[in-house]
Amino acid sequence: MRQSQLFTKTQKQVSEEEVSVNAQLLMRAGFVDRLFAGVYTMLPLGLRVLAKIENIIRAEMNRVGGQEVLMPALHPKENWLATGRWDALDVLFKLNGSGDKEYALGASHEEVVTPLVKKFAFSYKDLPQAVYQIQTKFRNEARAKSGILRGREFRMKDMYSFHHNQADLDEYYSQMIEAYWRVYTRCGIREQTYLTFASGGTFSQYSHEYQTVTNAGEDLIYVCDQCQIAINQEIIADTNNACGQCKNTDLRQVKAIEVGNIFKLGTKYSAPFNFTYTDENNTSQPVIMGCYGIGPSRVMGTIVEVHHDDKGIIWPAEVAPFTIHLISLCQTSNDVTMANELYKKLTDAGIEVLYDDRPDARAGEKFADSDLLGIPLRVIVSAKTIAAHTVEVKPRSSAESSLTPLTEFLARYV
Amino acid sequence: MRQSQLFTKTQKQVSEEEVSVNAQLLMRAGFVDRLFAGVYTMLPLGLRVLAKIENIIRAEMNRVGGQEVLMPALHPKENWLATGRWDALDVLFKLNGSGDKEYALGASHEEVVTPLVKKFAFSYKDLPQAVYQIQTKFRNEARAKSGILRGREFRMKDMYSFHHNQADLDEYYSQMIEAYWRVYTRCGIREQTYLTFASGGTFSQYSHEYQTVTNAGEDLIYVCDQCQIAINQEIIADTNNACGQCKNTDLRQVKAIEVGNIFKLGTKYSAPFNFTYTDENNTSQPVIMGCYGIGPSRVMGTIVEVHHDDKGIIWPAEVAPFTIHLISLCQTSNDVTMANELYKKLTDAGIEVLYDDRPDARAGEKFADSDLLGIPLRVIVSAKTIAAHTVEVKPRSSAESSLTPLTEFLARYV
Repeated sequence: MRQSQLFTKTQKQVSEEEVSVNAQLLMRAGFVDRLFAGVYTMLPLGLRVLAKIENIIRAEMNRVGGQEVLMPALHPKENWLATGRWDALDVLFKLNGSGDKEYALGASHEEVVTPLVKKFAFSYKDLPQAVYQIQTKFRNEARAKSGILRGREFRMKDMYSFHHNQADLDEYYSQMIEAYWRVYTRCGIREQTYLTFASGGTFSQYSHEYQTVTNAGEDLIYVCDQCQIAINQEIIADTNNACGQCKNTDLRQVKAIEVGNIFKLGTKYSAPFNFTYTDENNTSQPVIMGCYGIGPSRVMGTIVEVHHDDKGIIWPAEVAPFTIHLISLCQTSNDVTMANELYKKLTDAGIEVLYDDRPDARAGEKFADSDLLGIPLRVIVSAKTIAAHTVEVKPRSSAESSLTPLTEFLARYV
Repeated sequence: MRQSQLFTKTQKQVSEEEVSVNAQLLMRAGFVDRLFAGVYTMLPLGLRVLAKIENIIRAEMNRVGGQEVLMPALHPKENWLATGRWDALDVLFKLNGSGDKEYALGASHEEVVTPLVKKFAFSYKDLPQAVYQIQTKFRNEARAKSGILRGREFRMKDMYSFHHNQADLDEYYSQMIEAYWRVYTRCGIREQTYLTFASGGTFSQYSHEYQTVTNAGEDLIYVCDQCQIAINQEIIADTNNACGQCKNTDLRQVKAIEVGNIFKLGTKYSAPFNFTYTDENNTSQPVIMGCYGIGPSRVMGTIVEVHHDDKGIIWPAEVAPFTIHLISLCQTSNDVTMANELYKKLTDAGIEVLYDDRPDARAGEKFADSDLLGIPLRVIVSAKTIAAHTVEVKPRSSAESSLTPLTEFLARYV
């Protein structure tokens, strides 16, 4: 993509109401725009990153047999009354439709997916099933000051699994733990992320969260460096301030962002919807459920909190909006033609390139923008590099640049 | 995909509240599920079709320079007050958030996109721009009885273009007319669709709709068979019941579905947001806008209305959920292995195959399901075809099946 054609621009300053690093950097760089507190537009560059994160999640959910659907955001009041959450969930947006109908705006989808799967699963032969969606969710948060980490409207992947017994759920739950690790590895935050024991609600002793350590975190967790797991503050008293696995009490308290959570729901939602199945002996049995959430927009914000420096964002390779930021400092028409040709060669080879072809921008401005945008590899073409039959290459994560022979560079990428 | 693993099933009967052909067929086949009137879940098969339609639209919008964003569904009341549509748009859903904030649920996005693009466009050098999204929209329809043709929640591609003068808008508008034709051609409804003159509102004499002729249509249009264009009933009196181009008064009245509409907005939305730019003479000028809508879920319903028979849906190739419906009637383990191998060869070659591997379903049930699902090519593997080194091939759109030598079939697809 030619940067001269992008409708967004980088900005030196954005709203001072934005106190979070992720919102400041993402807005300054033109990845997101703030409509109001906790509600953001994904701009062209930001949507590219979001789509990459969502496609990673999609691939890993498909790999464990997940079947993708798209459920509505408008939910009938009755479904939420059935589970008791119409009144119990304080962040639920409610609204009126024609004919005095009342709706909830989907803050979660147990109330929709449970009766949905019930329509198709009657017998033990129809189980297990795993159904997921990647969709926009709404929560009426009292405060929203963490940028895209905690929005009133945000992207969510929510998967729900349906089993004929607890052992089958347990087995699938173990697979999901690994699927989630693959997501965080590919998103570049595996190293900072801990599987964390958290409150399980009514139906299981603990749930699991994935917590990414950063000062921007709203949660406090206690890391056991021996087991490489953590415990959420909300249950640390229950565990006698010790690691549940090795009983180590030398735990490290850190701030972290919850980037995923997985629950064994048991019959919490199948019971109110009378979702049962017929077993091998023709006996009616309750369906056992699990649920698995991960917020792609929150993951995006977390990546920024973890991977940035004072100059801007440093995107991990697999979620970067582009692979190469090609910067032309060319002035003469011959040199500009050379830069254009290089851009064409790279894009023809399927490389994702942002091409800073802006004729009016100074070199310093282009470098500052490039650092702010955070594309993994910066490649400069100038009169100097052309004369020497080279390009100047600098990884965003490194301070060092080097002159690489053009033939060598092309051999690597084209 | 193996049909035995699909969590949905075909159904003989669905809710009698659904009077539309598209909802009846899509629900019976397991493409969509009805949550309540006008609000549907896209099931795995339906989401595949929807994604194909949306990707066709995305490709064609990108081809005319559109830049994709994702705007929020929650809109501040103030933005809708600014354009007067908070009170004027009767289908606008309204809701309250924390701190007595009032929001609209996005029924359209002029109120968000106009101030957004204003943040980045100041000079004639920053124009033109075209920004679009593919997103879920909400409209509080009084009645919803046309299946996914007119939902309370539905998918929408809305593009907005921004120009320095009318001539530039006019030129871009002509490009969009052609881009829309490419979308309908690829979706298989070009032949039934007419560019239709419709009411232009305040700022241009006429707008253009794309109307697809079918008895399920809620609109009445008057087709001029000489010019291959049409006039919407709402303005037929203004045109003296004659074609605007050839003055032909022998017009054909037909029912049709509006599958797209494009407007020259002029300054209708730039004016209330004071969106101006500085021209070459350093003079402030109003920005001129166009908007271009198309509903992917409505297009999906329209395709079903146009392409079905009494047995089920007949998907056009480019939007079909799968290319091949491979049906195994094999009983012996040797034959089942042969069918499995054929499935693997096809999918390894990148062909999208739904594989009816259900061991318990009868042949007649498999054929009926296959006709209902409407995948373009049905391929049967059975003891008989295996013995003859063939497969039995039948296009969904044809009554004739033929035995094709397996080697010939594989040479064509693998």
